[in-house]
Amino acid sequence: MQPIIYAVGFGPGDQLYMTTQAVSVLQKVDIIVGYTTYVKLLQEQFPEKQFLSTPMRQEVERCQLAVQVALQGKTVAMVSSGDSGIYGMTGILLEVVAAQGANIQVVAVPGVTAASAAASLLGAPLMHDFAVISLSDLMTPRSLIEKRITCAAVADFVICLYNPKSKKRTDHLAQATDLIAQYRKPETPVGIVRHAGRAEQAVWLSTLEKLKEEPVDMFCVILIGNSQTYVKDGKMITPRGYQLESEVML
Amino acid sequence: MQPIIYAVGFGPGDQLYMTTQAVSVLQKVDIIVGYTTYVKLLQEQFPEKQFLSTPMRQEVERCQLAVQVALQGKTVAMVSSGDSGIYGMTGILLEVVAAQGANIQVVAVPGVTAASAAASLLGAPLMHDFAVISLSDLMTPRSLIEKRITCAAVADFVICLYNPKSKKRTDHLAQATDLIAQYRKPETPVGIVRHAGRAEQAVWLSTLEKLKEEPVDMFCVILIGNSQTYVKDGKMITPRGYQLESEVML
Repeated sequence: MQPIIYAVGFGPGDQLYMTTQAVSVLQKVDIIVGYTTYVKLLQEQFPEKQFLSTPMRQEVERCQLAVQVALQGKTVAMVSSGDSGIYGMTGILLEVVAAQGANIQVVAVPGVTAASAAASLLGAPLMHDFAVISLSDLMTPRSLIEKRITCAAVADFVICLYNPKSKKRTDHLAQATDLIAQYRKPETPVGIVRHAGRAEQAVWLSTLEKLKEEPVDMFCVILIGNSQTYVKDGKMITPRGYQLESEVML
Repeated sequence: MQPIIYAVGFGPGDQLYMTTQAVSVLQKVDIIVGYTTYVKLLQEQFPEKQFLSTPMRQEVERCQLAVQVALQGKTVAMVSSGDSGIYGMTGILLEVVAAQGANIQVVAVPGVTAASAAASLLGAPLMHDFAVISLSDLMTPRSLIEKRITCAAVADFVICLYNPKSKKRTDHLAQATDLIAQYRKPETPVGIVRHAGRAEQAVWLSTLEKLKEEPVDMFCVILIGNSQTYVKDGKMITPRGYQLESEVML
């Protein structure tokens, strides 16, 4: 039988937000492999399981570890928070398996991505077309990130920012805010969710002009409204009704 | 006690892809309200439940129905396929509750959106920044849809198209393809998923130059790769490694 590695997106962290497929896969596999922090989250919920972990930025090594274990005849789950298919481990896992020519089947188990989890806590900010952009420049040139932000702003997409800040990257969010502010009003609603769906969860509303001052870190997801987004009764809502075309043309 | 309406995203349809929270909410509520087609999907899985439905395009009426039932003291789940917060019912439900001044709490239960479900079947096309665009012009001017498509193409986003075609809208996808083809190579990989996660599921790969000829309908989600996306061993993969900047500038 061909060995299988499941690339499992486990959502925010709690079983409440996992799909029943994710739960059953995590229950049935021999070994769960993941980033150290996520492994800790899952160990509490699956205490009888065997876990293997590697630190952040050792994604390739993590995949090689999973391949090695799978080739020994164990069934393996490689876990990502959110959806394994959105900035998660599915891609690099497929690449490592292909590069090694390993006879392994990769089965992707999708999950609730951070944008969905954050949106559900803020109201309904993603009711219309949106762009998802990571501000991390570890793997992407800053010029490309800036271009994507500008294009998303021009096109009046709701903008969802992943990895908005880290200890080393403190100015990217300010720069992104300045770019967006060229095309959107200062009072544009902004929703910030930190540790969505976890014990430390924090959810708050801000505006584009105040975004730079917000206490944002790497555990936050930021949703910036389009020209129609409004706040009512504490909920951030992007209506689906007819929208006026933005003044700014390409 | 304040009445509650749960806005539940149930994913592709099968309980396998529902979160455990979605399953437990659907099990505990008195009444499930939804679009006729989705109600049929859920009736098979929750046969003991009471259901109410309205046809497509009667979203406001559906919300009014849910509000009416909730005010009678019943707990209600308003269902959407995918994620209730992405082109789903959460937004219009919040708007109807606010417009009526109804003393009702809306609790959003996020789910696996169609982009995630489709991506998991195609490989790993959403490993980098992406834009989600609906081609339906029922509620959005075509000029705005065209602008978003062009901006997404210029910015080298992976592009995910929802509602790519309907019986009345047969030319929108061809037009979108022409716009994208101005900025992306003819051989750009395209993934098409019809009825993701359902019995009728179909998954196939194509290219930008062949997209117009594909048998696409309203049940499809289309993922168009960025300049780095490739196909290997039948999997569509967008790498996360350093990307070359696109030649096209704003």
